[in-house]
Amino acid sequence: MDKTLKLTDNHAAWLRLETMIAVMERSRNLELARIGTNIPQASVLYCLKISKDPMTPMRLARMMHKQPHTVSALVHRMEAQGLVTTKKDMKRKNWLRVSLTKKGEEVLKKWVKSTQVPDALNCLSEQEREMLYTITRKLHAKGLELLRQMQRDPYSEPLFW
Amino acid sequence: MDKTLKLTDNHAAWLRLETMIAVMERSRNLELARIGTNIPQASVLYCLKISKDPMTPMRLARMMHKQPHTVSALVHRMEAQGLVTTKKDMKRKNWLRVSLTKKGEEVLKKWVKSTQVPDALNCLSEQEREMLYTITRKLHAKGLELLRQMQRDPYSEPLFW
Repeated sequence: MDKTLKLTDNHAAWLRLETMIAVMERSRNLELARIGTNIPQASVLYCLKISKDPMTPMRLARMMHKQPHTVSALVHRMEAQGLVTTKKDMKRKNWLRVSLTKKGEEVLKKWVKSTQVPDALNCLSEQEREMLYTITRKLHAKGLELLRQMQRDPYSEPLFW
Repeated sequence: MDKTLKLTDNHAAWLRLETMIAVMERSRNLELARIGTNIPQASVLYCLKISKDPMTPMRLARMMHKQPHTVSALVHRMEAQGLVTTKKDMKRKNWLRVSLTKKGEEVLKKWVKSTQVPDALNCLSEQEREMLYTITRKLHAKGLELLRQMQRDPYSEPLFW
């Protein structure tokens, strides 16, 4: 059986990126496990913390660029763990409002101090860090453009810019 | 309630990276859905294709930097879809050997040609692409170092380098 696969330069670069991200996310999840959380949960807590408007699972899904059913399941697990509460919206009965609990706030405080994996960025030179900022911005914008092409429901709510 | 959270520069850069990756992965999964697969499944198929040695779920987990139970569940779903087969190893009865099926090979052929999202890298200049290569290598190496510190079972099998 032929073991080779001809990949384009872009495809090969993309795979290297995917692999690096898998390694970094695995270490980030191990770091966050020490404070009893993980990357998706911390994203939910952070979105709830910084949002000025009431948060619904659908809005969370848009901010996190995840599928709504994935985020609904996540929110329900987090509610069972006491990190968030959900409440039916008084005006729109089919809307669920998600809020941070005191326990969620406590985890978030520990998360702010857990920076071992983010501090891996210190291995880059000043020039590389600046370039990473530019590259991340460009790819983020390009990714949003691709999403708009690929699906009807636009993911139009930028989170961290 | 105080809506601000003081994050370090590294932490903020890390969040931007996480968000960009979420957007790109979401579009990549939408692209791969057209050919009936997704990122984790395609990783399994690719690992099986390029591996010279028999593959077990444990080895797959190491190559993909995922948790063994996650990969076992993934392999069983893929077997149900006819993309891979599993067989008990004749020598080591507690080992499972995973192999590509003809259907898996067909998906892989389509995957090789599905490069809309990887081609997003074309939005970068030549200099930025070279820098991305360097940055990815550095962060990959740093991530492996962090994993070795954080867990006993070393993730020592580099995949795409």
